[in-house]
Amino acid sequence: MRHLLAATALVTCLVAGAAGANEGKLDYAHQEKWPSALDRAQSPIDIVTAAAVAADDNEPQGLQIWRSVSPIDKVEDNGHAVQVDTHSTEAMIRGRHFTLAQFHFHAASEHTIDGKHYPLEGHFVFKAQDGRLAVIGVMFAEGEANAAAQTVIDDLKPGADVAQKTIDIGQLLPKQRGYYHYLGSLTTPPLTENVEWYVLPAPVTMSKAQLDAFLARYPRNNRKLQPLNGRPVIRYGN
Amino acid sequence: MRHLLAATALVTCLVAGAAGANEGKLDYAHQEKWPSALDRAQSPIDIVTAAAVAADDNEPQGLQIWRSVSPIDKVEDNGHAVQVDTHSTEAMIRGRHFTLAQFHFHAASEHTIDGKHYPLEGHFVFKAQDGRLAVIGVMFAEGEANAAAQTVIDDLKPGADVAQKTIDIGQLLPKQRGYYHYLGSLTTPPLTENVEWYVLPAPVTMSKAQLDAFLARYPRNNRKLQPLNGRPVIRYGN
Ligand SMILES: [Zn+2]
Ligand SMILES: [Zn+2]
Repeated sequence: MRHLLAATALVTCLVAGAAGANEGKLDYAHQEKWPSALDRAQSPIDIVTAAAVAADDNEPQGLQIWRSVSPIDKVEDNGHAVQVDTHSTEAMIRGRHFTLAQFHFHAASEHTIDGKHYPLEGHFVFKAQDGRLAVIGVMFAEGEANAAAQTVIDDLKPGADVAQKTIDIGQLLPKQRGYYHYLGSLTTPPLTENVEWYVLPAPVTMSKAQLDAFLARYPRNNRKLQPLNGRPVIRYGN
Repeated sequence: MRHLLAATALVTCLVAGAAGANEGKLDYAHQEKWPSALDRAQSPIDIVTAAAVAADDNEPQGLQIWRSVSPIDKVEDNGHAVQVDTHSTEAMIRGRHFTLAQFHFHAASEHTIDGKHYPLEGHFVFKAQDGRLAVIGVMFAEGEANAAAQTVIDDLKPGADVAQKTIDIGQLLPKQRGYYHYLGSLTTPPLTENVEWYVLPAPVTMSKAQLDAFLARYPRNNRKLQPLNGRPVIRYGN
């Protein structure tokens, strides 16, 4: 019940903006003085799994990704993260079409699952025709080596030539595609809020040497946790 | 081509927040000093029809509405608009499930189409399970009387009893469901940006007496036009 109440609270809150029951008359002659509160739906968050709401039956559930073997446009250290630019991997995310623009890594993970940080989190930034961003967050844990992660590490070395290279995004995503979904923001400036988050709780492994290669560049580039402010976190799949 | 460039500009701009190519190192030890720019995707806008981009073929096109005859929960003058609260009308909007929470009216229209204001604009505020708001904007012009509009006017009168009443939302929507879609904000405080807009350009009529009944309460409750800031406006249907 707690989850449903939280969801209702957000909706009430947002609709109150349009409904205005609690703010009295609006002065349309002095609109520049209107209050705005555009910092209430920020990312990352702690995902409290017991508080997540199951997705409604009539919600589209899917997170389908295709053309996962993608040519690499660029691998770079952009000054605050290791990032790979691509352009051909596509996805249907809850009924809408997106294209993967880039992915990058944060250490430690930005999202936490029941308070737990992973050593690394990958952000796969998909964009839709209308400008909507949907970011898939993937947790990385120490374990088996990961061939796609090694491609990223190798291509970061000075003089590496990515012109002929491809990378299999599928190797960087867990087999279990259950996810937690909420509405949030970019986690770096300008912290724009029109971002849909899809956090996959099943971790993907990298070897210790691979994790260390990422951590050697950025031992800490994770934004602090942001308040949920009543937003529902919705559980899809498992 | 202009439209495609505009779309690319927004995407570049948003992704630049995550990519940060142009902002140098981020100081993770002083995150409270990060710049944010959360006032760039506001509503309403002028819809320049010649600059709208056709929807991609692989984009879901639909705007299906069902249970359009809805019980009225409340008809009220909320202090800055005439508003009707409902709860049972549902919609599939580009592949996702929404429920109509309320609708209300602005005079003159908040959105303009190629610079033209209509005397009244209705905002049908739909919400999804994740808190996403999708607002359908409908333009009202002077012409034939509208039975559903009359229901709203009658129910606003002191002593009106809405307990047994229903309203047919379908009478307040145009038959032609082609629309312009863009990402924007609430148009009243807190001006929250996580709002999808669907503006239907085909007007619906009310009689002069009906328009006057709305204008008598609020001759002007429309927010001024906001800059597009490179956002794409996408044309679906006609
Ligand atoms: Zn990120
Ligand atoms: Zn409105």
